[in-house]
Order: sequence, then structure tokens, then C-alpha cells
Amino acid sequence: MTFVVVAGTTATARIDGISAAGAAPDLLPHTPGADLDVVIHGEPTLAPVVPVSPTGCPTPAVVTRAARELLGFDLLAVDAGIGGTTGAPTIGVGAEPGQDVREGTAVPDARDTFARAREWGAALPDERLVVGETIPGGTTTALGVLTALGEPPTVSSSLPENPLDTKRRVVAAGLDAAGLAPGDAADDPLRAVEAVGDPVLAAVAGVTVGALDAGTSVTLAGGTQLAAAAALVRHSGVDSPLTLATTSFVAGDDSAGIADLAADLGVDLCVTDPGFDRLDHPATNAYVAGEAKEGVGMGGALRLVEESDATMADLRERVVAVYDRLLADEDAPDADGPPASPAGED
Amino acid sequence: MTFVVVAGTTATARIDGISAAGAAPDLLPHTPGADLDVVIHGEPTLAPVVPVSPTGCPTPAVVTRAARELLGFDLLAVDAGIGGTTGAPTIGVGAEPGQDVREGTAVPDARDTFARAREWGAALPDERLVVGETIPGGTTTALGVLTALGEPPTVSSSLPENPLDTKRRVVAAGLDAAGLAPGDAADDPLRAVEAVGDPVLAAVAGVTVGALDAGTSVTLAGGTQLAAAAALVRHSGVDSPLTLATTSFVAGDDSAGIADLAADLGVDLCVTDPGFDRLDHPATNAYVAGEAKEGVGMGGALRLVEESDATMADLRERVVAVYDRLLADEDAPDADGPPASPAGED
Repeated sequence: MTFVVVAGTTATARIDGISAAGAAPDLLPHTPGADLDVVIHGEPTLAPVVPVSPTGCPTPAVVTRAARELLGFDLLAVDAGIGGTTGAPTIGVGAEPGQDVREGTAVPDARDTFARAREWGAALPDERLVVGETIPGGTTTALGVLTALGEPPTVSSSLPENPLDTKRRVVAAGLDAAGLAPGDAADDPLRAVEAVGDPVLAAVAGVTVGALDAGTSVTLAGGTQLAAAAALVRHSGVDSPLTLATTSFVAGDDSAGIADLAADLGVDLCVTDPGFDRLDHPATNAYVAGEAKEGVGMGGALRLVEESDATMADLRERVVAVYDRLLADEDAPDADGPPASPAGED
Repeated sequence: MTFVVVAGTTATARIDGISAAGAAPDLLPHTPGADLDVVIHGEPTLAPVVPVSPTGCPTPAVVTRAARELLGFDLLAVDAGIGGTTGAPTIGVGAEPGQDVREGTAVPDARDTFARAREWGAALPDERLVVGETIPGGTTTALGVLTALGEPPTVSSSLPENPLDTKRRVVAAGLDAAGLAPGDAADDPLRAVEAVGDPVLAAVAGVTVGALDAGTSVTLAGGTQLAAAAALVRHSGVDSPLTLATTSFVAGDDSAGIADLAADLGVDLCVTDPGFDRLDHPATNAYVAGEAKEGVGMGGALRLVEESDATMADLRERVVAVYDRLLADEDAPDADGPPASPAGED
């Protein structure tokens, strides 16, 4: 088993009111690189931010890192338009940062990114891949893709109150600019990504299709963004078994409709509850309050813990340890530390 | 502990008679990428060659991979001018493939590569790094650097008979073209790399200096190429403790003079014998016959096995398993398989 995290950025995240990320737009491009640093190294190295939201919610990369420290699995990072810096080794798929979906040309090189990611996914020798993502603004682009494909147009949010109306207006503007009506891209899924998606969706779909073609089993690790990737896979004509492993926070978000979406796509939904309500700690409280919910493969990481001999209590203990290490430099008397940066299912 | 493999290429490897690599020059640029594939994935993925020499000697990446499967350590790959393709995620340090040392401008961007590698090495949170290399032709560029620094000018070879005279003629031509006499770069070590080194040496020295600056302990994993990197570290004014972990094959090569070189540099030499003479298998026989000797961190990987609870017999068993997997596709009836490629301490 190998864990894959696909990281990228989209200018869509800068749109007012869409994302927790909007509160700190200058730090935004650095979050995916910082997330990769956390899952690979356990803390930011070259990324200039600590991925903790202004309200104190740590990136879900902390949970994936904690699971990795507990279980010891390999993790490979894919650069799908990171933009910022990272100290994590990455595999390139020729992607640039995504553009604002309102312009209707969000990912001009979607087909090339998909093809390169597909080739890489097909070449991996693993029997199983668990694939997650990190891209601020990604639920809006996921909504764009679901809408263009004619799938149920609903997604989750990193905010406690999902700004779904705003996201829908943004997507409608993008489809209009692209000359697409809802469902128009059903037979050409990469057209949906080109117009109103993001480069991470192109790469996740590519890796998944390539891996499934090669007989590798794939667990999509995440919420509605990974469901949108699953929709791209299905609309590419691939009907192999596919699992979507998400958190109880996404499954409990009625606005996200994740169960219906998974059923509609013929994808097995697997929900894991990390039991964060049993703690009272800054590493986990924001999740209990409805922030972040998912991201950086968190649902898949929790699923791997559940499949292992480790307990969720072990995982929670490790989450606290990773969080404390992450924030240790922040508290150092000789440094202000890098600025905080938004995180989660945006 | 994290294992780091720095990979790159140099046009110097194409010079007739220098390297086992010279037997198959078209495949040469693909060897480092294939080596990274092997240590990361266990077999080539996107690299179009299986790194086994025309005489059947498998790349030492097989040994490092075997140790990794046995011990489960993290491995990070650095792209120091790979040139060819690889399916392994890499961290970039801005390096291009190295040029022919005879021209006297082997690595024009050596200072930038060193600086970027140093920044990355300093940022890594690990307590210990083990750093190896893969670059065909690398013993000739190592000889160039040692000569320019005024260190004992002697290196090992991937060939049973070390073509040391040829290497010395090549280095002399390079120094002449650069306007340097032996020892002229003693106070400006990156001048030695610029003139007659390779990009991997710049990156290994940078990672090492950065890590040592940050209080990380560093084991240089390899033979005379890593000794040349140690020389660059010493001539940069860094006198922290440093270990060179190499194989018994390099230590047994009188032409390499590795013990004297290590002593001269104030570096602890640590030699590990994998006991390959206890097997009679194509995975190991060529090493016993004097081929390859070292590379892709092999000496450091063996050292880690020795430090662990695993035995050298466990390692040998795993080496055979990795080799068999590597060659399995070669024997498949439906494919000619990718062409073989040279490997080892070139």
C-alpha cells in the first residue's frame, strides 16, 4: 500500500467568502506545500507557513502524518500546480496552478496533466493506492466539475457554515463563460476540468484511472473533492470497484450529501470517526466544532488505522504529538515563527 | 533517520573507457532515474531501463532497496540533474546535467545548487541523515574535485580494472582548460566543482553542510565519490564529525586508497561486508568478481543493517528477492523488456 497526496493551487480560492482560506489570501499559495512538508517531514521545512487556520484549526495533514507515524506507510507527493515552495520531494505531472473558474478556462492543460498522471499511476507497482488531495478552494472547483458532469451539485466546506450559494454563483459564472450548461461535459469529463475544475482533480483522476487500468485497487481518501474525482473516473468509462474513504465530519455535513453522491457514482463509501470528541485539545477541538472536516487524505488515513492493529486512541495520541511538534517553533521565544495559514476541506 | 539519494548525470560518463557505462552510452542518462525508481518503488516505473549492467551486474540500488524493505526507513530523492525520466518523487535543487570535465566548465551553476541543497539540508528535522549518490561517470569527477582541492588524487571504479590513468588524463585536461593547477581550489571548493566536478557533488556537499550546521548527524554513504563530497565539506571550513560508510568492495580496492583519503579528511571510515561470497547468485556474483562495488548509498544501507536487529543473511535474502522482482519483467514472454543499463561506482 502506498499513500499518494496530490497537491495544487487554484486562483479560485481567492474569491471572497468561498473558503476559510479567504481570511489570509497571501498565505494561501503556501498551504499545499506546507501540507506536503507535514506529511513527509512531520513539520514545515522550506514552506514558509505553519498550516493552522486563523481560528486555530490545524491542517488535516497532521492526522495523515500521525497515521503515517503510527503505521509506517510510504507516502508519495504529486505536484499538481503547487505554486509555493515545499521541502517535500514531488513527482511532476506538468501542471500549473489553476485559474479562477469564473473565467471558464480554469485548467487549460487538464488533458496533459491527466495523461501524465495516468501514465504514472499505471506504472506504480503497488497493489493498493490511497489517494488524497490538498488544494485550497477545491470544493468550489469540485462543485464546478460535478455540475458540468451533470452529477448532484453539492459539496462540503472547511467552514462550519457552507457558503454553497456563493460557490454555486461562482460555478454558474464559470460555466457561462465556458459556454457550458450543467451536464454538457458528461461525455467529455476533462472538458469539465478545463472549464471549471482544478489541476488536482485532473491529476487525481489520472492517477486513479491509470492505477485501476493496471489492476491496482484505489481508495480515494477525502470528501466531496474526491467524489468529484470519482465522477471524472466514472465519466471516463471506468467502472472498476472504487472506495471513497472520508471522515465522519464530512459524512455528518448534510449540505455535502456525500452518501447520495457516492451511491450515484457506484462508489463504496467508508466513513471513519476519529473520536475527536473524546479529547479537549486544540489539535482536535476545531474539527469537533465543524471546521476543516477533511483534507490531505485524512479519511483514508483514518481508514488505514481502522484496518490496522492500532487503535483510534493511539491515533489521537499521535495527532496531539504531531500538533505539539508543529506548534513548538511558534512558541519559541527567539522567533515569531512562520505565519499561520488556512487548512482543510475548502 | 532519513536516507537521502542524490541523483544526476554528467556528460563525462560518455568518455571512452572511463566507466562500465561507456558500453551502452545511449542508456546512460536513464540510469540515475531508474535507480531512484528502484529505491522508491522497488522496480523501474517511468524510467525506461532496468539498471543491470551488460555483464549482468545489478545496480547497487537493489541493495539499498533491500535494506529499506528490511528496515522500513524513509528515503528522499534529490534531482541534481537527472536528465532522464523517473517515477520517483524528487526535490529539485536547480541543477542541470553536468558537462564534460575536459571543457573545464563542468558545473556552471555549482554555487546555486550547493546553496539550495544546503538550505534544504538545514531545514530537515531529522536527527540523522544517510546520504548516497547515483551518477554514472562520478568517480572521474570525484577525482577532478580531489585533485583541484589538493587531496590525494585517487578513486575507485565500477570496473574490475580501474582505468585510473584515463581518468587522470581527463582530469588534467579539465584543469588545464579551467586554468587550474592541482590544489588551486583548496580555498574555494565550489570552484573545483564548477571546473571539473559534477552536480551531484555540489548537492551532496550542500545537503551535508546544511545538515551539519543544523546539528544533524550525517553519514556519507558511498566510496570515493562521497569522500570527494567530504573533501568539499572540509574545504568549506566545516569540521563537525562526519562518517563515511562504504562497502568492503571499495575498501578492498587498493587503487581507491579510501582509508588514507578518509584519514586525510578527518572522516570516520566504516566498512561493511555484505557477505556476498556466501551466495552463488546473479544478484551478487558480479560484486564478488569486483564489479560495481558501491553506489546509491549501498555502504550506508549495509551499515544500517549492521546497526539493526536484522542480520546480513536477512539482507542477502532480500537482495535476491528484489533482484528477482527486477528481472521478472525481463523474462515475461510477452515483452522484450526495457534494455539493460550500466550501474555502480563509475
